[in-house]
Amino acid sequence: MQTSRIQVVGSGLVGALTALYLGKAGYEVDLYERRPDMRRADIAAGRSINLVITDRGLQAVDRVGLKERILDITIPMKGRMLHDVSGETTFVPYGQTDKEVINSVSRGELNCLLMDAVEELSNVTIHFEHKCQSYDIESKTITFTNGKTVTADVVFGADGSFSAVRRSMMDQVHNFNYSQDFLEHGYKELTIPATPDGDFAMGRNYLHIWPRENYMLIALPNLDGSFTCTLFYPYEGEESFENLQTKEDVVGFFERVFPDALAVMPDLVEDFFANPVGSLVTVRCNPWRVGGQVCLLGDASHAIVPFFGQGMNSGFEDCRVLGDLMKKHQTGSSMDWSTLFSEFNDARKENADAIADLALENFVEMRDKTADPLFQLKKKVGFELETRYPDHFIPRYSMVMFHPEIGYAEAQRRSLVQDQLLTRLCSNISSPEEVDWEQADALVKEVLSSPRAQVGV
Amino acid sequence: MQTSRIQVVGSGLVGALTALYLGKAGYEVDLYERRPDMRRADIAAGRSINLVITDRGLQAVDRVGLKERILDITIPMKGRMLHDVSGETTFVPYGQTDKEVINSVSRGELNCLLMDAVEELSNVTIHFEHKCQSYDIESKTITFTNGKTVTADVVFGADGSFSAVRRSMMDQVHNFNYSQDFLEHGYKELTIPATPDGDFAMGRNYLHIWPRENYMLIALPNLDGSFTCTLFYPYEGEESFENLQTKEDVVGFFERVFPDALAVMPDLVEDFFANPVGSLVTVRCNPWRVGGQVCLLGDASHAIVPFFGQGMNSGFEDCRVLGDLMKKHQTGSSMDWSTLFSEFNDARKENADAIADLALENFVEMRDKTADPLFQLKKKVGFELETRYPDHFIPRYSMVMFHPEIGYAEAQRRSLVQDQLLTRLCSNISSPEEVDWEQADALVKEVLSSPRAQVGV
Repeated sequence: MQTSRIQVVGSGLVGALTALYLGKAGYEVDLYERRPDMRRADIAAGRSINLVITDRGLQAVDRVGLKERILDITIPMKGRMLHDVSGETTFVPYGQTDKEVINSVSRGELNCLLMDAVEELSNVTIHFEHKCQSYDIESKTITFTNGKTVTADVVFGADGSFSAVRRSMMDQVHNFNYSQDFLEHGYKELTIPATPDGDFAMGRNYLHIWPRENYMLIALPNLDGSFTCTLFYPYEGEESFENLQTKEDVVGFFERVFPDALAVMPDLVEDFFANPVGSLVTVRCNPWRVGGQVCLLGDASHAIVPFFGQGMNSGFEDCRVLGDLMKKHQTGSSMDWSTLFSEFNDARKENADAIADLALENFVEMRDKTADPLFQLKKKVGFELETRYPDHFIPRYSMVMFHPEIGYAEAQRRSLVQDQLLTRLCSNISSPEEVDWEQADALVKEVLSSPRAQVGV
Repeated sequence: MQTSRIQVVGSGLVGALTALYLGKAGYEVDLYERRPDMRRADIAAGRSINLVITDRGLQAVDRVGLKERILDITIPMKGRMLHDVSGETTFVPYGQTDKEVINSVSRGELNCLLMDAVEELSNVTIHFEHKCQSYDIESKTITFTNGKTVTADVVFGADGSFSAVRRSMMDQVHNFNYSQDFLEHGYKELTIPATPDGDFAMGRNYLHIWPRENYMLIALPNLDGSFTCTLFYPYEGEESFENLQTKEDVVGFFERVFPDALAVMPDLVEDFFANPVGSLVTVRCNPWRVGGQVCLLGDASHAIVPFFGQGMNSGFEDCRVLGDLMKKHQTGSSMDWSTLFSEFNDARKENADAIADLALENFVEMRDKTADPLFQLKKKVGFELETRYPDHFIPRYSMVMFHPEIGYAEAQRRSLVQDQLLTRLCSNISSPEEVDWEQADALVKEVLSSPRAQVGV
C-alpha cells in the first residue's frame, strides 16, 4: 500500500528510534508522547534503573548515524567490580579485549538526544501531552486522553510495559495471549555523589556489585562523577523493604551488609525515604500485530527485568530488524506492511522470549553466583575456550552483549550446551591452569560439534 | 468481623454453589447474575462443552446435601470408547470397580438445579440482569452495567474466565500476576440425536472418542438419548476450521476421518454452520484476594482447558475448601475473612496450577496417545500395580477423578514418579502378562518408597 502518514505511540527510547527509522525511510511520521517535552520541562523521564547500551543497541543506532553521538555521552565499563561485606573488591572482566565493554548512559540524556535527532527530520512531528487512551482496530482510530482522535493506516505501539495500544489489542483481538509476572523483589534508586573534588568515589569504569545471595546493590557511573545505585531487595519477608521503616533500620542494614558503600553515600537516608520502590515485571504477549495496521515493539510487546541490561537493547534491535524488513518489503513507493509485520513478529518473538528468560537467570547470577569461586573459575575457563576455539565457543555473556549477529534465542540454546562443557571441565579443579586440555579437545569435538553449537548457525 | 451481607458475583455453577455454602452457614447473601433467569427464559447457559461431575465435585455438593439430586440427572460413563477410522471400537475402562465412573451432565440442567436449591434458602437472593462492570477496592463498591452500585464488606468473584472482578483487581492491585494462554485449537459443538425409537445411537455409558493425533471428536450421553459431540480442531493450518468452509468440505472431512460418527449425525452440516467455534483458554493469576474483602474462585482465578473434566470440579472443590475454612475461622458469630482468604489462596493456588498443567497434558493423551498400544498397555499394568500395591500406586487418572483426598498438586508429583516406574516395567513387553513382577517388587521398593509417593502424603 501507499502509506500516507505513520503514527508512532510513545517517544521513549524505542518509540523515538522507530520514528527515526521511519523518518529516514521517507515517511511522514507523527510521534505521540504522553508527557510534556522533557527537554524543556524539569521532569523525570520515568524512574529507571541506569541503562547500559551494548553492541546490539549500538548496531541499531549506527544505522541511523547516531552511534558516535551516543557514545559521547556514555561511560564504558570493562567488567564487574564485586564488593564483599568487608569491602574487599574482586574484578571480573566482561571480555578479553578493550572492545568488549558495556556502556553506562543516563536514560534521560539518551532520550533527549534521540528526540533532538527526530526533530532534525522535517517529516517527523512530535506531539507532546498526547497520552494514548485506546486504539480501535475496526475504525483504525487512536483516542487520546486529551479528547483528540486520529485515524491511522499504520500504527506502531512503543508505549512501554503498560502499553495502552497492547491493552486495546488484548480487548479486541480474539485469542490474544498475554502474561505479566512480577518479581518478589522491588528496586530503589540511591546515589553515590562525586567527591568534593569532583572525582568518582570508586573506580569509574566498572559496574559495581554488592552481591548478597538473595539481594544486591549495584552502581553505574555517570558523566558528572556520581554513581546511580540500585538496591534490588524483596518487598516482603524477614529481609525486605517492609522491614526498613526507620532511619536506624536503613543505616543499620547498610552498616551490616554494604559498609563500604555506606561510607560514600552521605545522602542515603534522604534518598531512601524520598524514592519509591519500583516493581520489576516481565510481560509477554502474542500476536504483536494486527494485519498491516498496528504493530507493538519494545517494552510494549516484551518488557523484561533489567539484569542483563537488554531491555532497551532488545527494543533497539526491534528497530534494526524493522529497518531490514522495510528494505525487503518495499516495492517502488509501496510497502507490504502485513507481510512485514508478520515476519517481524515471527523473527522477534522467540528472541524476546529468550532474553526474558536470560534476564531472569542473570539476576541469580549477579546477586548470588558472581561471588562463588566456581563461577569465577568458569568465567576464566570460558575465556580460554573462546581463545582456543573461537568458532565453537563464545561465553554466554559475550554472545548477548558483544555478538549481535547471534540472536538471543540462539545464544540461549548454545549456552545450554556450553555450560555442560564448562561444568565437566571445571569439576575437581580450582584454577584454570589445571584444565586438562586434551580432555577439553575431545569434549569440544563431542559436545560442540553439532551445527547448532557453531557460531552464527 | 461481624459480617452483615455477603455479595457473590456470578450465579454460574461455582457462584451458585458458593452462595449455597454461605447461605447454609447462615449469612445473608446477594447473588448477582448478568443474564436473565435461565430457568424462565429460553436462553443458552453460555455455550459449553458437556460437563462431567466426578468425585471431587460430588464431595463438594454432598456437603450441602445435593449429591443424590445431582446424580439423578447424570449418566455414568465407565470408560473411553475409542473409535478408529474404520469404525472399529476399543473400550478402555476408567477404573477397576463399578464405582470408578465419571458422570455426564448438562451444564444448563445442573445450573438450574443449583439455582433452585439456592432459592430454597430464605437468606439468599438472586439478582438477575446484574452484570458486574467493576469492583472498586478502596470504596468496596461493585458497579453493575445497569447503573446500580452496591457496597459490600465481603465479595466473592465467581464470574468466570473473563471475570470483571479479576479485571478490576488487575487494574488496582500492585504487582498482580496474570496470564491468559489460548490453545491453537478451537472447539465446535455438534449433536448425535437419539434414534427414531428414542434410543442411544451408540453405547450409552461411555465417553466416546475419535482420537486423530492432532485433533479429536468426543461424544457424551444426554438423558434424552442424544449425545453432545465436540470437535477439537486447529483454528488455522492445513487441517483446520479455516479450511472447512463449504458443506462439501465438512462432509468430506467427516467421511474421511469420522465415518461412523457421520452415519449417526443427520444434522451435521446444519449444526456445523450454526454453531460458533469456541476458544480454549488457561487463565492463571495471583493473588486471588485482597485482604478479607474480596476473593476469586472457580474460573475467575483458574480457568483451565476441559480435557480432564475438572474445570467445574476444581471450582466445586474451591467451595468445599472454603466451607472447611469457614468452620476453622469462625469465632462465635465473627469470621476472620482476611486469614481465611489468605489460607484459601495458599491452599488452592498450587492445586489450581497443577490441574491446569494436567488438563493441557490430557489433551495430548486423549487425542493422540489413547490410540497407542503402549499407552493401553501402561493403563492395564497401572491397574495391576494398583491392585498389588494399593498404598503406593494409584493411576494418575484415578487420583484426579476418584481420589479427592489427594490434591491435584500431589497427584501431579506422584504421577511423575509413577510414570517412570510404568515406563521401566513396560519396556520390551507387549502384554500385562509379561510383566516381571519380581523386578516390579524391587522397583516399587526403590522408586515408590519415598514418603512423597505414598497415598495421602
